[in-house]
Amino acid sequence: MKKLIALILFIVGSQHSFSQNNLFESYNLMPWPKEISKNNQKFIINEKFSIAVNDIENKRIAEATTSFLRRLSGRTGIFIDNGFAVEVSKNNYSSLVINFERQGKLKLNEDESYILKVTNNQVSLNAVTDIGVIRGLETLLQLLEFNETQYFFSGALIKDSPRFPWRGLMIDVARHFQPIAVLKRNLDAMASVKLNVFHWHLTDDQGFRVESKVYPKLHQLASDGQYYNQEQIKDIVAYAQLRGIRVIPEFDVPGHASAILTAYPEIGSKDTISTIERYAGVFDPTLDPTNDKTYEFLDNLFKEITPLFPDDYFHIGGDENEGKHWNSNPKIQEFKKAHALKTNHDLQTYFNIKLEKILKKYHKHLMGWDEIMTPNMPITAVIHSWRGENEGLSKGGSLIEAAKKGYKTVLSNGYYIDRMQSVTNHYLIDPIGDVKLTEAEKSRVLGGEATMWSELVTPLTIDSRIWPRTAAIAERFWSAKEVNDVDNMYKRLETISYKLEELGITHIKNRDVILRNISNNQDISSLLALQQICEPLKIYTRNKGGTEYKSYSPFTLFADACTADAPDAIKFNKIVSNFLKDSTIDNKEDILYYLNKWISNYEKFEKLNSSPILKKINIPYKNLASLSDILKNILITKTSNSKQCQKINTLLKKLQVPFVDVELIIYNDLKKLSEQLIK
Amino acid sequence: MKKLIALILFIVGSQHSFSQNNLFESYNLMPWPKEISKNNQKFIINEKFSIAVNDIENKRIAEATTSFLRRLSGRTGIFIDNGFAVEVSKNNYSSLVINFERQGKLKLNEDESYILKVTNNQVSLNAVTDIGVIRGLETLLQLLEFNETQYFFSGALIKDSPRFPWRGLMIDVARHFQPIAVLKRNLDAMASVKLNVFHWHLTDDQGFRVESKVYPKLHQLASDGQYYNQEQIKDIVAYAQLRGIRVIPEFDVPGHASAILTAYPEIGSKDTISTIERYAGVFDPTLDPTNDKTYEFLDNLFKEITPLFPDDYFHIGGDENEGKHWNSNPKIQEFKKAHALKTNHDLQTYFNIKLEKILKKYHKHLMGWDEIMTPNMPITAVIHSWRGENEGLSKGGSLIEAAKKGYKTVLSNGYYIDRMQSVTNHYLIDPIGDVKLTEAEKSRVLGGEATMWSELVTPLTIDSRIWPRTAAIAERFWSAKEVNDVDNMYKRLETISYKLEELGITHIKNRDVILRNISNNQDISSLLALQQICEPLKIYTRNKGGTEYKSYSPFTLFADACTADAPDAIKFNKIVSNFLKDSTIDNKEDILYYLNKWISNYEKFEKLNSSPILKKINIPYKNLASLSDILKNILITKTSNSKQCQKINTLLKKLQVPFVDVELIIYNDLKKLSEQLIK
Repeated sequence: MKKLIALILFIVGSQHSFSQNNLFESYNLMPWPKEISKNNQKFIINEKFSIAVNDIENKRIAEATTSFLRRLSGRTGIFIDNGFAVEVSKNNYSSLVINFERQGKLKLNEDESYILKVTNNQVSLNAVTDIGVIRGLETLLQLLEFNETQYFFSGALIKDSPRFPWRGLMIDVARHFQPIAVLKRNLDAMASVKLNVFHWHLTDDQGFRVESKVYPKLHQLASDGQYYNQEQIKDIVAYAQLRGIRVIPEFDVPGHASAILTAYPEIGSKDTISTIERYAGVFDPTLDPTNDKTYEFLDNLFKEITPLFPDDYFHIGGDENEGKHWNSNPKIQEFKKAHALKTNHDLQTYFNIKLEKILKKYHKHLMGWDEIMTPNMPITAVIHSWRGENEGLSKGGSLIEAAKKGYKTVLSNGYYIDRMQSVTNHYLIDPIGDVKLTEAEKSRVLGGEATMWSELVTPLTIDSRIWPRTAAIAERFWSAKEVNDVDNMYKRLETISYKLEELGITHIKNRDVILRNISNNQDISSLLALQQICEPLKIYTRNKGGTEYKSYSPFTLFADACTADAPDAIKFNKIVSNFLKDSTIDNKEDILYYLNKWISNYEKFEKLNSSPILKKINIPYKNLASLSDILKNILITKTSNSKQCQKINTLLKKLQVPFVDVELIIYNDLKKLSEQLIK
Repeated sequence: MKKLIALILFIVGSQHSFSQNNLFESYNLMPWPKEISKNNQKFIINEKFSIAVNDIENKRIAEATTSFLRRLSGRTGIFIDNGFAVEVSKNNYSSLVINFERQGKLKLNEDESYILKVTNNQVSLNAVTDIGVIRGLETLLQLLEFNETQYFFSGALIKDSPRFPWRGLMIDVARHFQPIAVLKRNLDAMASVKLNVFHWHLTDDQGFRVESKVYPKLHQLASDGQYYNQEQIKDIVAYAQLRGIRVIPEFDVPGHASAILTAYPEIGSKDTISTIERYAGVFDPTLDPTNDKTYEFLDNLFKEITPLFPDDYFHIGGDENEGKHWNSNPKIQEFKKAHALKTNHDLQTYFNIKLEKILKKYHKHLMGWDEIMTPNMPITAVIHSWRGENEGLSKGGSLIEAAKKGYKTVLSNGYYIDRMQSVTNHYLIDPIGDVKLTEAEKSRVLGGEATMWSELVTPLTIDSRIWPRTAAIAERFWSAKEVNDVDNMYKRLETISYKLEELGITHIKNRDVILRNISNNQDISSLLALQQICEPLKIYTRNKGGTEYKSYSPFTLFADACTADAPDAIKFNKIVSNFLKDSTIDNKEDILYYLNKWISNYEKFEKLNSSPILKKINIPYKNLASLSDILKNILITKTSNSKQCQKINTLLKKLQVPFVDVELIIYNDLKKLSEQLIK
């Protein structure tokens, strides 16, 4: 019987991925739905657009339908008469009719499925839960299209549900505090791509961001005044709940504890004064796992804090404890011997198991980074996999190991968006990949989380580091493994990206704010032209050793205006690749377009009133313009001389060197092009 | 003796305004300080920049100095070593040394003066209160200049204090709710131009925006879920206090009461069902001033609410009550007879006097719009003057009348920024003007408030309606009457305006967000070219009778991307005026530049994928391009024919007509130019 079902699923799956290939071009949906079939109908939107729901008292539905109407009106400029949804019974002729069975619970594996049907006459949305309705409404908004005279929803029948039940975004509010408004707009954006877990990294060496009434020194002494009071936490949790998003708090212990020990040094492992950390990296201050007061402290704190977070899971961090302060403390060494704890890892397991029991009292399952997966750790714990890239994901890493050992597990390795890599890197990493797992093992792979560590981001820039890449990651978590066409992902992502502005996401607009700041309100077009081909240094090279930037260093620099996936670089890469294959006149013209763009924009740049900031950009920009000029001449004249070749090589060497914490991401293509032209 | 002082003040004043004229070009200060003298020194900023304060425990100072360091670092890109100010005793060699005498109280007439001295070696800032320090720090940031190799504070000696003690901005959060984040960024911006009163218009027909635990139906039934809970209110008040800004709440009664009566109809004047109002205008629902329960309700409500707002003043609105529901209620008519209240105005005075007593119990002075100024009103009330333009401000209006009658009074007539007029209109209105007042009367003119009524603004657009114009109004309230050079104001305002982005003000960046939305993420440059010469319809003509727009109508339209003082229109006006005076080749070239800009941008616009929104803009834009083309030909060929003249007249007639709720603000200049060219 199971095999039969598997066979049917396989056939359905194949058909479905086939139809996707045809439909990918028709719809800008992200995440791509499980099943979609096109009809050649469309539902036209006018002032009479209306929504009816079978239960309008449901808060999630009331909020979601009202917001839907505002967004629809905002995008189309249509003055929709009805500002709010009504009960189905009152209006059977509504444009959009919504039916659902029950209120969803924000728990693992809650039903998020929905069926959406768009025809000429009506749109219907059916779901088991209100959360399913929310997911479907986002899909419907993505079906909005227009022609010269009309806005309409493209006709389709969509039957959708997620592949993984845990689809998260982690935001670190410790390294740089993120105000409530930042979190709210990101929760809106998360909901728009069907993410359902907000992992709130609330404490670290650089700050303790929660008001504690039991241990008030935590927020008073260890936050620089930048923390959430308990009402604000409730507000965020409620805001997330309305959007079908679970909130998992993280209190990172026993390491990453500089802030906690700034406030309460008495539970530290070393008799020393801690201060709020201003740099980035791994630091020594660690809670003392041999001190009863430590557990008393954590018990009281968790007793106070856990009711603020209704979710079943509670993240205790547990990562990157190098145990230096444990090693240097004779009492701790004695304790280890007395309790037959051979390694610091054993000691940390001792600590984790005690925590697991404390959390159990407050009806919470413990979750932690993969260091917590030690032999004695109960399998009730959830393993959050972040390491393992060195071992190669193909071998499974800690995620697969955890699932095989019986732990539930969530993948973040591969989704570290703070590494500033291309979206392609993340998009192509599948939590399970080709690893063979039993059904039971598979079901323990809950999903994944993109992680936004905030050493190098502030409220000004955080959105441009999260978005739009996280939309593609959200698709990885929601959609079938076979949905993995990179070109098509880019195409859809472009639309999804700018629609995020509707929700207040600042990734596009704040780029210009930074450039206006840098240029002192002069014409930014020349800086913009450069920004389109530069990317911030990747994989932690921007802040080597964590000491170049402090938490209060400026993040208003040219590098902060640059993002992963620099748009002109992507286009130029294609153009060069085409030209190298076939140097037609058209392909040559494409190349010339960009060379001219950089030449003329450098001319503009030169005319700006210079400043210390602009001065640092001048030489690299000039080198790019010079190189472009030589390449242009060679392209046009079809001849090159040795002097030019020499100059090209010199310039390329210079352009390979990062400047103001960015790399000229077109360097490789310029090199290839140069080699072709002077060979 | 008094005459002698007046004479000295006159002489000092004259010198000071004389020196301003010279210095206006040197500094981009706004508001302009009371006294400033230039020295040819400058304080250069580097990584070692530091701040020392005589009392670092003071919260306002701690917040302000930290924020100062972040902003300085953010603007310059300099990695300043010290992230926080220190005690003076610990560092006598700090770059900036701050001394103040005492913590300021947020009360009328508190000392806000400061003395700021910038030399090559050090910057010193001295003030009586911490509030004075805050004001001075904003001035210092405005002294930041740069050359190719350095950032520095321009040398100066500034002795500054405000002309008026009440310098406010009112934000209406009833017509369109404004989230906490909107208020916070606007409070930051207010502080940056030394405004010190945030008037919070919290209730109106369209919503009651405050959580009440005593009368919970107010926020539950009369806010659409969009209200501030009491913790949020405390948060805003604390946020404002840190910035030296008083918060005056307004609960508008007895009119503007649709929302209150939606929740508690039993205290209404008519036995009818009220609902939250969706349109704009003046509505009939009014509290019943003859019902004891009304006073019981207001007493309980104010008892609950007043502790949230520590300020001495409490605004009860009191405006625009036409009394229709009073007229139609026989019991109310009987009550009037029984109490010898001849008119509805008398009845409202009866109501106001009762309110004044209730508020007194809670240690609050009553403030209200000028309708409350009736014969029996106690002079403890503050009159907020909003009417009177018809009578002509030169005759004084209600402000002068109030001051003469012994009331304290605040001016908003002339500062209605929601009318979308040019900043010049507001800038040139002086609260006292040339009216002769005694010193006592003068001292009762407390100052003024810009009023941001929110019928036509949402969080997306509100900043672009408040800023930058309110910075110029702030100067009117702070600076001497003689500081009134419009051209120089524009010059300084341009710098001040873009610096507001640092504080999160969205007036520039959200323009592009709207244009991207309208164009469906196509190239916005052609829309931007049009935006630069269009302004939203003014003086309430955009929403005639209050019925074109509902509260949930779209405010994401082209008109919402347009602002008062369209920048290219201002420039074109100058250019045409120059050309009409003298048709030199240079002046002709200037004209041609703009004509070509509009011609070429319309060509770009035409190539966009059209949509219903873009289609509405097409014809007017085409007409502008056609007219520009004809004028260009005439300018170049220096000849015109009758066919061209006819065409010009037809096109001008069409361009005079508003489209998509904007007017082509260059129309008059196009007309003048045309007349000149074809005469």
